[in-house]
Amino acid sequence: MRIAIDAMGGDHAPHEIVAGAVAGLDQLSPEDHLVLVGQQDRIRAELAKLGRAETDHRLTILHANDVIEMGDHPVDALRQKRDSSIGRMAKLAADGEVEAFISAGNTGACVAACQMKIRALKGISRPGIAVVIPSFGGPTVLCDVGANVAPKPHHLHQYALMCSVYAQHFFSLPHRPRVALLSIGEEDAKGNQLVKQVRSLLKNDPRLNFVGYVEGRTLLSGQADVVICDGFVGNVALKLIEGLAYGLVEMLTKEIAQENHQLAKGFEPILKNLWRKHDYSEYGGAPLLGVDGICIICHGSSDRRAIKNAVIVAKGMTSTNINQRIVEFVNAEIPSPSPK
Amino acid sequence: MRIAIDAMGGDHAPHEIVAGAVAGLDQLSPEDHLVLVGQQDRIRAELAKLGRAETDHRLTILHANDVIEMGDHPVDALRQKRDSSIGRMAKLAADGEVEAFISAGNTGACVAACQMKIRALKGISRPGIAVVIPSFGGPTVLCDVGANVAPKPHHLHQYALMCSVYAQHFFSLPHRPRVALLSIGEEDAKGNQLVKQVRSLLKNDPRLNFVGYVEGRTLLSGQADVVICDGFVGNVALKLIEGLAYGLVEMLTKEIAQENHQLAKGFEPILKNLWRKHDYSEYGGAPLLGVDGICIICHGSSDRRAIKNAVIVAKGMTSTNINQRIVEFVNAEIPSPSPK
Repeated sequence: MRIAIDAMGGDHAPHEIVAGAVAGLDQLSPEDHLVLVGQQDRIRAELAKLGRAETDHRLTILHANDVIEMGDHPVDALRQKRDSSIGRMAKLAADGEVEAFISAGNTGACVAACQMKIRALKGISRPGIAVVIPSFGGPTVLCDVGANVAPKPHHLHQYALMCSVYAQHFFSLPHRPRVALLSIGEEDAKGNQLVKQVRSLLKNDPRLNFVGYVEGRTLLSGQADVVICDGFVGNVALKLIEGLAYGLVEMLTKEIAQENHQLAKGFEPILKNLWRKHDYSEYGGAPLLGVDGICIICHGSSDRRAIKNAVIVAKGMTSTNINQRIVEFVNAEIPSPSPK
Repeated sequence: MRIAIDAMGGDHAPHEIVAGAVAGLDQLSPEDHLVLVGQQDRIRAELAKLGRAETDHRLTILHANDVIEMGDHPVDALRQKRDSSIGRMAKLAADGEVEAFISAGNTGACVAACQMKIRALKGISRPGIAVVIPSFGGPTVLCDVGANVAPKPHHLHQYALMCSVYAQHFFSLPHRPRVALLSIGEEDAKGNQLVKQVRSLLKNDPRLNFVGYVEGRTLLSGQADVVICDGFVGNVALKLIEGLAYGLVEMLTKEIAQENHQLAKGFEPILKNLWRKHDYSEYGGAPLLGVDGICIICHGSSDRRAIKNAVIVAKGMTSTNINQRIVEFVNAEIPSPSPK
């Protein structure tokens, strides 16, 4: 299996990216291969720092001269920076040169590159980013978190179907994944026009185990395995969770330190342990579901551990044929209701 | 001044509502008057429990037989339950019988009652709910959090203007309130169609101190005094903050208790203190800005302290003529840019 990685993408690129990629490779089988995409001199320098021979037959460097920055406009950047690592990776995937690719760079550019270069899975109109969030009742898949900020009802319906397959695979659930829709109340009448239309699509699809609306307050309660929303709302929610969790813990730590030094010392390891348990980087990035290839989008702040996990997840998703399962599920004939 | 209160609205009605209302009244001036609206027998029973004479000349009970439940469809409920406390209160305000009214009941029904019965402020098309959230950098006004789930760009522009006045008044700011727009990135190009259109309106309005986009991660950082968003997104965000804060603290408390009993004992008062400092009920409910009257919407779970604070806030908003200030600000002639 061949996995490409964007050595230039992310706040800590290329240093942490190359280190994480190589660490990930070491966990895979001997026949697996890694393609490091980006400015070759910088990648070489990183490999040297790691004491890694460039002649390693399981590693290839693919030079791409241009770097798409975090703040770049996705489509403009892809057009103007014709030799970017992101553009190159999407082309590799489209040509079947790699089975999966990973980037911690500009998310919009990854999505746009996939849409421009890689065909969609049969039955899917638009890809969506599915992220696993650690809720208080176990992990939950939230989709979409930013690929599609103006979705049509059928896009969200397709996300529900794809995430049902993804959650089943990822969590090895003993039951059919419970799918919920994010809204502003739990009663049927609550929500905007989009949400009400999607509700009726999900409710009437016998392939889905639809459990109704969840609201902001219950999003993290673990009452659903999959929560579907439009990409704008999902992105706000995801980043809010991150900002609030960090902020709260920081405030608490400061307050305890001021109050009681002894207490602060006892508190520290508990907090560290808790962080570790709920660290998003454990989940190794978020797949862009719906394109014919495995594209894993990592957090901009990803360190080597997050990248290593992304490599392992990419391998797992490829070897379990997640895309084929999605295509079969999405295009399955819907059993018609039995006549009364 | 006369303030009406929905004795039947909220999870702890009428008990906590009546107790809080009376406690609030005790903090106001002798000429202030409270109208308790709802089922009179139940209100009387609560007053008796509090040892409060029903003949108190500063208290009136206004009987309303119907109760709109939390799960009722707002407009349907107002039409079918013609003698509801919420409907009655809006009528009192429309007729100038009370200057302000408060409810911890069905938010949608309060908004709908105001829109049906009370005229809008001059220059305002749709009311919005403005809630004060305790951010890590000081309080922030978030608007709208659920009155308007399908806003037009000019609605959000009007919310920005109204909240600028409200924040200035409420926080006594030494500077012009910094107004931000909630989006999915900080760069200009990020966001959906609505947000991009609103951005241009806010940027070009010289009355506003517009500071750009904030995203979910920075919503609570205190870099803006006012954050504007559509009612769907705002409601999800508000409830998510609540759910996550409670959940995190609960998890942390449990973890510490398991780990170290002594530590848990030391942690408890720090946590309590922190809760108190950041408790939304300190802010006494959220005004529905844009209607010609003061309507304060309280959290469904409001206890007597929250209601007491809402009474005090209602008095403050009325006596500082917030609505008149809003009308003057919104309808002020915009200085045309000086010729070059």
